[in-house]
Amino acid sequence: VNKTLKHVPGSVTAPRGFRAAGVFCDIKRLGTGKGSDKGPKRDLALIVSDVPAAVAGMFTTNQVCAAPVKVCLERVQTQTAQAIVANSGNANACTGQQGLKDARAMTTLAARHLGWSAAQVLVASTGRIGVPLPMANIERGIAAAATQLGATPEHAAQAAEAIMTSDTRPKQIAVEFKLGGKAVRLGGICKGAGMIQPGMSRTGQRPATRAPHATMLAFLTTDAAIEPALLQCLVQDAVARSFNRITVDGDMSTNDTVLVLANGLAGNPLLRADPTHDTAETPLDVLCFGDALDYVCLELAHMILRDGEGVTRFVTVRVTGARSATDAEAAARAVANSALVKTSWFGGDPNWGRIIDALGYSPAKVVESKVDIGYSAPRGRRILYSLKRGQPTAATFQQLCQAVAAKEFELRINLNLGRADAVIYAADLTEDYVAFNKGDVSDPAALGG
Amino acid sequence: VNKTLKHVPGSVTAPRGFRAAGVFCDIKRLGTGKGSDKGPKRDLALIVSDVPAAVAGMFTTNQVCAAPVKVCLERVQTQTAQAIVANSGNANACTGQQGLKDARAMTTLAARHLGWSAAQVLVASTGRIGVPLPMANIERGIAAAATQLGATPEHAAQAAEAIMTSDTRPKQIAVEFKLGGKAVRLGGICKGAGMIQPGMSRTGQRPATRAPHATMLAFLTTDAAIEPALLQCLVQDAVARSFNRITVDGDMSTNDTVLVLANGLAGNPLLRADPTHDTAETPLDVLCFGDALDYVCLELAHMILRDGEGVTRFVTVRVTGARSATDAEAAARAVANSALVKTSWFGGDPNWGRIIDALGYSPAKVVESKVDIGYSAPRGRRILYSLKRGQPTAATFQQLCQAVAAKEFELRINLNLGRADAVIYAADLTEDYVAFNKGDVSDPAALGG
Repeated sequence: VNKTLKHVPGSVTAPRGFRAAGVFCDIKRLGTGKGSDKGPKRDLALIVSDVPAAVAGMFTTNQVCAAPVKVCLERVQTQTAQAIVANSGNANACTGQQGLKDARAMTTLAARHLGWSAAQVLVASTGRIGVPLPMANIERGIAAAATQLGATPEHAAQAAEAIMTSDTRPKQIAVEFKLGGKAVRLGGICKGAGMIQPGMSRTGQRPATRAPHATMLAFLTTDAAIEPALLQCLVQDAVARSFNRITVDGDMSTNDTVLVLANGLAGNPLLRADPTHDTAETPLDVLCFGDALDYVCLELAHMILRDGEGVTRFVTVRVTGARSATDAEAAARAVANSALVKTSWFGGDPNWGRIIDALGYSPAKVVESKVDIGYSAPRGRRILYSLKRGQPTAATFQQLCQAVAAKEFELRINLNLGRADAVIYAADLTEDYVAFNKGDVSDPAALGG
Repeated sequence: VNKTLKHVPGSVTAPRGFRAAGVFCDIKRLGTGKGSDKGPKRDLALIVSDVPAAVAGMFTTNQVCAAPVKVCLERVQTQTAQAIVANSGNANACTGQQGLKDARAMTTLAARHLGWSAAQVLVASTGRIGVPLPMANIERGIAAAATQLGATPEHAAQAAEAIMTSDTRPKQIAVEFKLGGKAVRLGGICKGAGMIQPGMSRTGQRPATRAPHATMLAFLTTDAAIEPALLQCLVQDAVARSFNRITVDGDMSTNDTVLVLANGLAGNPLLRADPTHDTAETPLDVLCFGDALDYVCLELAHMILRDGEGVTRFVTVRVTGARSATDAEAAARAVANSALVKTSWFGGDPNWGRIIDALGYSPAKVVESKVDIGYSAPRGRRILYSLKRGQPTAATFQQLCQAVAAKEFELRINLNLGRADAVIYAADLTEDYVAFNKGDVSDPAALGG
């Protein structure tokens, strides 16, 4: 943990001037919904800022993108927003013109209750693909959420619950740090579980390199004062290092969305991209804010991975010595998405044969006689090599088994061909993942997108 | 089935002048080996032609390729060969200089027993990666196999058994057809099961497009008289349409090999690539031989898929209307290798949302509002659409469930953007696949490559 960051409760409501709510409006129309003692699981979230906020967003690069993503892509152009309305249980994807109309209607309904313009409201959905949104339920939900808005940690937790789909637990974080002598807070909630290898970009257009995939949603709030263009820039970097580096199953969703609202109520000197600004300390502040953003995004991304469908192991695949950054990422992703490598992790089997096989068929340049493969603890310095320059080391099978028996470990691969590196956070492939996703065709309503 | 082809027994020994043997020499050094009432499973195969034969080969494009593949790549340059020696239980991959020495030694040992030069012998291995071959066992095995060679179907079946790894059954075929009035036979054996998405080329160099992966081995024999260059050409085409179009788990092996021996003993007029040859009927004969080769390769490839690890469903993914052939293949492979699509097949869930999601993140150009998705029986004409131009059809969930309940069906995808098409033969992803591949770390000898 960054020493300048202090964890605080309340996630999205931790920063000044933010309120949230999460309600149940039966979006899956199951009658009751799956729930605990506290009632059915909430399925509609509302997050609002008391004042207009700078906004930044990152969106799925899937060519088949959901209606709410299309609406957000337009709205973030204005650089300000004041609310996010989000639902689980229905992705509003592959729903055609009606879907677009419904996504816009969600923002209009929220705006009406809040007394603002619909253009100030962003929208996100996650759940089943290809089913029209039940708008009567949505309308009821938005009305209820608007009246229940509050700034307590309990309100934030309810919003976190409301965006969950196959997640087994809500995912939340908030930190506090100083900018120009002022206490600033940054909080966030997210959801993931399956269809997780996000590959988001600012425009929804694909970058040159192949990127990741699940429905993951993340909503961040901060009371920092920051120019929207700088915020977008920092969010892009943070997402590239966090959400876009996780993979549960290699499937990229139609709905992946990260939204960040910055309302400036902390009163810090405005963080600006302009290099000719007049206060000397601003560059350090920008760095500091960027670090906090990186930290929060990475923590949230890791929560998604740890709670992935059926996941029992969290493996950091670290590739060094690649000829290029593209090669490094391609090599790491080939290993991280190999069904055989992932099942061997599940079994606690230190099978380097499958790893070097995946490296060999990756698009990255690989020379068998140069490859090192080893294991370390997370961020550990000591590496136990199973392969050095393509040859098995003296490490015993028992030692290697011990290294991969840990619930979280790093796979260290050195291609020894260059200076580029990449990291991908990966999960194992388990019988539970298959059992969960094979679905239950006797209950079509339970089948997710 | 091609009406001009007649199935005959005997697989690799069906053509004139070929003999085979399969023996047990305990390559895994388990002491006994896993076996049936008939004794432990055979693990070393020898296939020989009585006279020198034209040879053609296709080899894994994995950059990490096994020693026997390297040896074959050299040897097929000479365009003739007379024997194939192959073992299961050990892939002789990632075994460095010793591995190369051992692979060459296998050919020398076989040549010595057969009384030929080692240059006339080809070699293949499949099994665990990174373990030196037990050469004493191999030597014993080759000696035994050389004395047990025979031309009966039983001999061919023993060779087919000897190359099996996680296969549950031997895979064999032979056909007879006429060339220039002469009866010609073509037979083959193969093995597959896991690490199956082969992407083979003649040189082991990668083609421009991304290609497939398991260890799969296939050995074909024919008594047709054919020029080696033409044979290589036809084999490349046949492999491109068969073995290179199957995927069990998306993992390409270090050892994939197809070898074809043509000894000419059928006495047909020599099939030649030269378009200025003097017999008018040869072009038709070339076509006829090519068709037989296509048929045998596709049948063997389908046997591999049906017997893939944990496989319960065989799905032909047929993409039409793509902008280019590259796009068509990329779209088909994205769907065929999506963990979410494959688990839904296992569950009998006609989840088109996951299919269009995979199309959307594939490198192929896809426009949501143009996509058709439907189902048919294998090679069926009637298509039941679940999606037309991006919109759900009136087909009921029950109708769609029925379409995907079949053990074998076709997924018909029309991108409606162009005229290119592609087909990929895919398998579902099951709990049994995961259970099988997670391995048993208490028994390292059982862990496969």
